[in-house]
Amino acid sequence: MNNNLKIKLSEISEIVGGKLVGDSNVIISSLAKIDEADEGDLTFLYLSSYEKFFDSTHASAIFVKPEFKKTRSDISYIEVKEPEKAFASILLKFFSPKFELVGIDKTAFIDPTSSLGKNVALGKNVVIGANCKIGDNVKIFHNTVLLENVEVGEASLIFQNVSIREDCKIGKRVIIHPGTVIGADGFGYQKDEKGVYHKVPQIGNVIVEDDVEIGANSTIDRAALGSSIIGKGSKIDNLVQIAHNVSLGINTIMSAQSGISGSVKVGNNSIIAGQVGISGHLEIGDNVILIAQSGVSKSITKPGIYFGSPAKDFKTAKILEAHFRNIPEYVERIKKLEEEIKNLKEEKEQNKG
Amino acid sequence: MNNNLKIKLSEISEIVGGKLVGDSNVIISSLAKIDEADEGDLTFLYLSSYEKFFDSTHASAIFVKPEFKKTRSDISYIEVKEPEKAFASILLKFFSPKFELVGIDKTAFIDPTSSLGKNVALGKNVVIGANCKIGDNVKIFHNTVLLENVEVGEASLIFQNVSIREDCKIGKRVIIHPGTVIGADGFGYQKDEKGVYHKVPQIGNVIVEDDVEIGANSTIDRAALGSSIIGKGSKIDNLVQIAHNVSLGINTIMSAQSGISGSVKVGNNSIIAGQVGISGHLEIGDNVILIAQSGVSKSITKPGIYFGSPAKDFKTAKILEAHFRNIPEYVERIKKLEEEIKNLKEEKEQNKG
Amino acid sequence: MNNNLKIKLSEISEIVGGKLVGDSNVIISSLAKIDEADEGDLTFLYLSSYEKFFDSTHASAIFVKPEFKKTRSDISYIEVKEPEKAFASILLKFFSPKFELVGIDKTAFIDPTSSLGKNVALGKNVVIGANCKIGDNVKIFHNTVLLENVEVGEASLIFQNVSIREDCKIGKRVIIHPGTVIGADGFGYQKDEKGVYHKVPQIGNVIVEDDVEIGANSTIDRAALGSSIIGKGSKIDNLVQIAHNVSLGINTIMSAQSGISGSVKVGNNSIIAGQVGISGHLEIGDNVILIAQSGVSKSITKPGIYFGSPAKDFKTAKILEAHFRNIPEYVERIKKLEEEIKNLKEEKEQNKG
Repeated sequence: MNNNLKIKLSEISEIVGGKLVGDSNVIISSLAKIDEADEGDLTFLYLSSYEKFFDSTHASAIFVKPEFKKTRSDISYIEVKEPEKAFASILLKFFSPKFELVGIDKTAFIDPTSSLGKNVALGKNVVIGANCKIGDNVKIFHNTVLLENVEVGEASLIFQNVSIREDCKIGKRVIIHPGTVIGADGFGYQKDEKGVYHKVPQIGNVIVEDDVEIGANSTIDRAALGSSIIGKGSKIDNLVQIAHNVSLGINTIMSAQSGISGSVKVGNNSIIAGQVGISGHLEIGDNVILIAQSGVSKSITKPGIYFGSPAKDFKTAKILEAHFRNIPEYVERIKKLEEEIKNLKEEKEQNKG
Repeated sequence: MNNNLKIKLSEISEIVGGKLVGDSNVIISSLAKIDEADEGDLTFLYLSSYEKFFDSTHASAIFVKPEFKKTRSDISYIEVKEPEKAFASILLKFFSPKFELVGIDKTAFIDPTSSLGKNVALGKNVVIGANCKIGDNVKIFHNTVLLENVEVGEASLIFQNVSIREDCKIGKRVIIHPGTVIGADGFGYQKDEKGVYHKVPQIGNVIVEDDVEIGANSTIDRAALGSSIIGKGSKIDNLVQIAHNVSLGINTIMSAQSGISGSVKVGNNSIIAGQVGISGHLEIGDNVILIAQSGVSKSITKPGIYFGSPAKDFKTAKILEAHFRNIPEYVERIKKLEEEIKNLKEEKEQNKG
Repeated sequence: MNNNLKIKLSEISEIVGGKLVGDSNVIISSLAKIDEADEGDLTFLYLSSYEKFFDSTHASAIFVKPEFKKTRSDISYIEVKEPEKAFASILLKFFSPKFELVGIDKTAFIDPTSSLGKNVALGKNVVIGANCKIGDNVKIFHNTVLLENVEVGEASLIFQNVSIREDCKIGKRVIIHPGTVIGADGFGYQKDEKGVYHKVPQIGNVIVEDDVEIGANSTIDRAALGSSIIGKGSKIDNLVQIAHNVSLGINTIMSAQSGISGSVKVGNNSIIAGQVGISGHLEIGDNVILIAQSGVSKSITKPGIYFGSPAKDFKTAKILEAHFRNIPEYVERIKKLEEEIKNLKEEKEQNKG
């Protein structure tokens, strides 16, 4: 964090278009969570579960919703509709980390057939294979390896220990976190009559479009033929698996430990939550939300929320889950019915007798 | 892909033992998926869901099944029983990537007590610890680390940023993708009376037999004692976890994000699909197929297909899933029965009265 | 393993406080599993499923429970209450691996503003960024990268290809296995009205307390603000995901491929088994055990065992699972009831007629 920053609260209020209540001359030097804030810190409140910290916070100022009861006079308030967003915008504007890396380290290797743009920074032991094209203002941290024919668009940021295999294309302003592997062979084999698996060469590549972010230790396999594609603006978390020939749409989210099997197409603006799995050759449409741990074995083209393994539409899944918890009661009701039928039949027998 | 290749279609047809329909002099220079193919490309059709692309493909030739309706005259056909296999064999024969790496880079470190076979290639910053034995024609890419006493059999290919810890043995023709860790300590502790965990030293190793392939960012832990074993010809996908003292049979498949707990034995020719988990100390037999996301908490020795968490035989699992979806209907039927019983009882009371 | 060790069995018996039955002069040179043991090996028996190996083991000595039937006279016994613990203590005392790494390799880079304690060992191509503090007796293996302001406490062991990002603090006697990433950005975005995601800067850090062990290829994200915390003595397996602002208690276990979403607090002495997932902003108390593949979508504050997705208390989950398997029978009973009602009604109609 930038440790020497001093910003007047009135300036902050103006930037976010908020209403300042309290001392507009307060100087903000840092941001913090409400339960950890100290003098000079700006904080925010948007989840009611954090309100319990309001009485004791040491923050100097706080973003709150207009309706929030301002019971303390030793703290300044900025009223905004969405405190979280206001806070994030100040974080972005004044406290963005710099990811400092300057120049080309002398231990970095650049194949002479490759070209670097202006102002590229390469860390220690970086390897740039043959015929790569690295755009302006790209930063590649230590021990990262790019094999031949890789392209990286301008202003992209690639952290340490990343592997990008031959022929893969990385767009502009892409961020790739440590340990991620792009372009490993897809998992493709032919089984012979003896049950022995023979590798099918994987000769496609991976295309990562502009503004994508990929978390740590994720894996995106190259296509068998053609390209595996991560659409513009999509965000991928840690330990995510994307198989060969997958195509992910625009502005789609994949949370940690989710996985997509081969040749799946996912649309735009969809959300694949943590530990979700999608079987091969399926189609997932736009605006589909898959809740955590769901398992998808059939295509889902209708926008909506889905849950379960196998996945069902969320409303149905919730009803079924409630029924599931009630089964013991249903069984009791069946037992009671059986007894009553038995009684009715016995009575009838007696009446006959 | 090899960009200068020119093969006559008649030659291709002969290799796969197919029947050529159309112009046998067509020259093939590349392979492509049907929806991406261009002039000079050979493609194939085996899934009916891709038939919609047939009318518009620009491919020059196509592998099809004999019964396929050859409605276009501007394209040449090779009829084969299994178009996918024929295509893969041509891919393998003419378009296999070379994974070019030649010689021993001057930044690679080889401990003087280690021995290298003929024609070994070591990339930049590779570390080969003490007493390692590296076979002929092995390629080890950049930044990969082998600690002491590691053996790698001939013609194995180890990509970048791989870690192989001390004493592990890698067979012949093994492929290990980037970021994979072989031989990390197993997860073993003794808990004392205060609830503090004490590490149990893990002094075994990992043995990877011949012709195994291991995907990116997977982890195979060393045995506590003895060996964790990956059997000959088995194929392991990305982000797979294999715990200490696991033994995997021959020609067994583990798909992405699946995991096996400690001391599990898995047989031959089995398939463990994506995100499957297997609890510790179990036995999984030969020819067992575990469908994606299954959780196995009891040994499975009978060949067959299994699904669910906890896993059940697939037929049962499908019946239960259908019932599960029907529970709301069953509850309605119970309600109706309750009403009818109530009516019957009321009528009887009235009759008595 | 130390190959030149020779220990008298009587000495071993004394150390573990056991009762020696047989030849006290037997010399032990190694430890092994019962089915793999050879002459000179000490082994142990605690699971009844391994007793089948007793008749044929070549071990020279064995830890057994006092009640074990000592049917062989060519083997020496040490009776102890807990054979597994006795074995582990001998393993720990005599056979602990040394993880040999000595001195600072000339290819390691240490920023001049960083400080190293006594007896630090740095492997090849290690990168230590600006303003780091490395404690006494720390070992950092090859190709590991620490960015600026990282602290590592004394006697910690960091294996190869590990990434620790800026500002993270690692305690004393911490072990980090290969490929693990500590301090990558948390997965935090603000979505604008066009559906475009904007990155929220992640300016916190990760604090790993003393005596923690972290497996291979795991990921622990830095906090958005403040710290993600791994409590003292906690043990984390391979391929585990810990999101931003998570706080893990003391002596808590996370098994392989489990994952915790953002801002979750987990208590002390809890166990999170393999492939478990926990949704964001929840609280998991002390002494909570989550069985493998469970999915937690609500806070769990009561100690106990939980299972399922969504997770239920284990006793309930077991009852529900049994009912689930019985649904076909329940449906049969409903059908039978329907028939009987139908018969009763028909009979009544006939009686009326």
